[in-house]
Amino acid sequence: MEEWTIEINRSATKKEKPNTDQLEFGRVFTDHMFIMDYSVPLGWHDARIIPYQPFSIDPSAMTFHYGQSVFEGLKAYYTPEGNIQLFRPEKNMQRLNRSNDRLCIPPIDEAFVLQAIKQLVYLDKDWIPTAEGTSLYIRPFIISTEPFIGVAPSHQYRLIVILSPVGAYYKEGINPVKIAVENQYVRTVKGGTGEAKTGGNYAASLKAQELCSQKGFTQVLWLDGVEKKYIEEVGSMNVFFKINGKVYTPALNGSILEGVTRNSVIQLLQHWNVPVIEERISMEVLYQAYLDGSLEEAFGTGTAAVISPIGQLSWEDKDLYINDGKTGKISRDLYNTLTRIQYGKEKDPFGWIDIVNEANAVKQ
Amino acid sequence: MEEWTIEINRSATKKEKPNTDQLEFGRVFTDHMFIMDYSVPLGWHDARIIPYQPFSIDPSAMTFHYGQSVFEGLKAYYTPEGNIQLFRPEKNMQRLNRSNDRLCIPPIDEAFVLQAIKQLVYLDKDWIPTAEGTSLYIRPFIISTEPFIGVAPSHQYRLIVILSPVGAYYKEGINPVKIAVENQYVRTVKGGTGEAKTGGNYAASLKAQELCSQKGFTQVLWLDGVEKKYIEEVGSMNVFFKINGKVYTPALNGSILEGVTRNSVIQLLQHWNVPVIEERISMEVLYQAYLDGSLEEAFGTGTAAVISPIGQLSWEDKDLYINDGKTGKISRDLYNTLTRIQYGKEKDPFGWIDIVNEANAVKQ
Repeated sequence: MEEWTIEINRSATKKEKPNTDQLEFGRVFTDHMFIMDYSVPLGWHDARIIPYQPFSIDPSAMTFHYGQSVFEGLKAYYTPEGNIQLFRPEKNMQRLNRSNDRLCIPPIDEAFVLQAIKQLVYLDKDWIPTAEGTSLYIRPFIISTEPFIGVAPSHQYRLIVILSPVGAYYKEGINPVKIAVENQYVRTVKGGTGEAKTGGNYAASLKAQELCSQKGFTQVLWLDGVEKKYIEEVGSMNVFFKINGKVYTPALNGSILEGVTRNSVIQLLQHWNVPVIEERISMEVLYQAYLDGSLEEAFGTGTAAVISPIGQLSWEDKDLYINDGKTGKISRDLYNTLTRIQYGKEKDPFGWIDIVNEANAVKQ
Repeated sequence: MEEWTIEINRSATKKEKPNTDQLEFGRVFTDHMFIMDYSVPLGWHDARIIPYQPFSIDPSAMTFHYGQSVFEGLKAYYTPEGNIQLFRPEKNMQRLNRSNDRLCIPPIDEAFVLQAIKQLVYLDKDWIPTAEGTSLYIRPFIISTEPFIGVAPSHQYRLIVILSPVGAYYKEGINPVKIAVENQYVRTVKGGTGEAKTGGNYAASLKAQELCSQKGFTQVLWLDGVEKKYIEEVGSMNVFFKINGKVYTPALNGSILEGVTRNSVIQLLQHWNVPVIEERISMEVLYQAYLDGSLEEAFGTGTAAVISPIGQLSWEDKDLYINDGKTGKISRDLYNTLTRIQYGKEKDPFGWIDIVNEANAVKQ
């Protein structure tokens, strides 16, 4: 890590915090934010923590026009003992730089940005909710800010980290969802930006999501953009299937996002001696497994829900009711173990937990 | 068109205008901008022309995170008689709404936004350069502004129109370029957002563009994302090939942008009784036409360059030198006729020209 300093400008006032039972995802933000700018002569510079506030930007800023942007999402958790934990944050920093590379954005110093995130979280630690299942969502993102409307990589960028207290994803216990296999729209394709966490992938997903919601489904299951046969992701989560005692997930192929929860689930299953197979999975093969009774469970994985069991999967004119529409044992075990590790209620044998403590206190 | 009014706040000072011979594309902006906001209770509202300036936006504004944005590009031209002309602006308004639909952005009133653009252009008409080949580039764009970091269509949007005086694209005459056929990266795929003018498509293109530039090429030629066999676009332009006296262009297939210049070229060729064929074109067929000597010309079409002849096309280990690397007759005729119509130097038999005049003067 290079030598960096972070300027601190503390907020003069503290905002009122929302009630824990009224927390929504991503609508309320804390008292401070972290900012760092990039320019060609200076590189990344002017790292600072300032009061959370709107910022001024030119209407010709490239990010508005050509979508050159990347982001990450992770969480801070309070343990019952009052410790603050992050879950594998270095994976998010690594992926941010992989996304940067795909989007022609200059790399960040991963260790420094992680340290900045820890300082910001510690400064705003009173915002981390403590109720069961709640956490502080951390959103680092980078936008291109050069005032130039030509199609080219920007010469100026801004990295911002904002924090949002979020409620329990499952208010009434982990609950299976209805998913529709998407046959018309595609999220991305090999050679595209699917591996990167960039806005365009999410913008492309909105139309299919809107149409499936109208039909009563929670999310869509994306098929590959080439043959529309092979399973890629579900909504903005990775997806797993338990078939005949083995757990399958689509192999990373260049268009699937490499989820941190996906990777953790694979490690956890291997730790439990459950066979995990990463390979190309067609809807046809999945449907045959359903028909012959060997499809035992299906679930999505992501930072928000951790584990999201799939109770019904609709594909063309067929409805697959998986595990009688109930949460399966593996899904529940994974959810319980992952969340217990994240919240410090269970020993972490993997070195996944990164502590935020007084060492991250702002000295100024 | 509904009843709308535009509030006007004139700039107190006028910025210095750049020298005509130093004009770059998209770096300098005029004295004013048009803004209109959308919210769920009000719909599109608060239409206003204000001094060109940065604006304040929340770091959680959805556009920074999930890329829900669209844009357009068109030009205003001064005729030798001092009239101001737009070229088929209603096509841009129609496409803006098609892009809006794909990106789940509420539709605009096309006639009203066109009228607002005309008012803005007339107000800043001193910024339209008059030298040969120069024009005023008009950039309407819409961003999602709701302060919410959830993946869903925004409930708040901002439409902005900014203007930029641009120099002649060909300073030393129309000039053929070297193009590399892209085999690794893809721009988009059927079922994706390729038909829409949205930032993500351009963000996805940057990496391939960067790599081809390093190898000395001007732009890439995109193949389809499914089979990587069929020709889609060149850089951010549509593409045409003259083979054995007939002109071919890839048929609109859901992943190709429907260019206004593309459509105008097709109409113009038909007007000239040159056969035009819109169909799927493979690189293999094009290469065979090159080998047997029937590939006579190749060119890109777009608002910026109008016509961009392709002198060299590199595909895998093969280099196709088209028309001995020189600008062909059809390319030159199309360029001359289109630009002469745009600049009012030739009669417009197609009803393409839309005049901006005193009727568009701001009354306030």
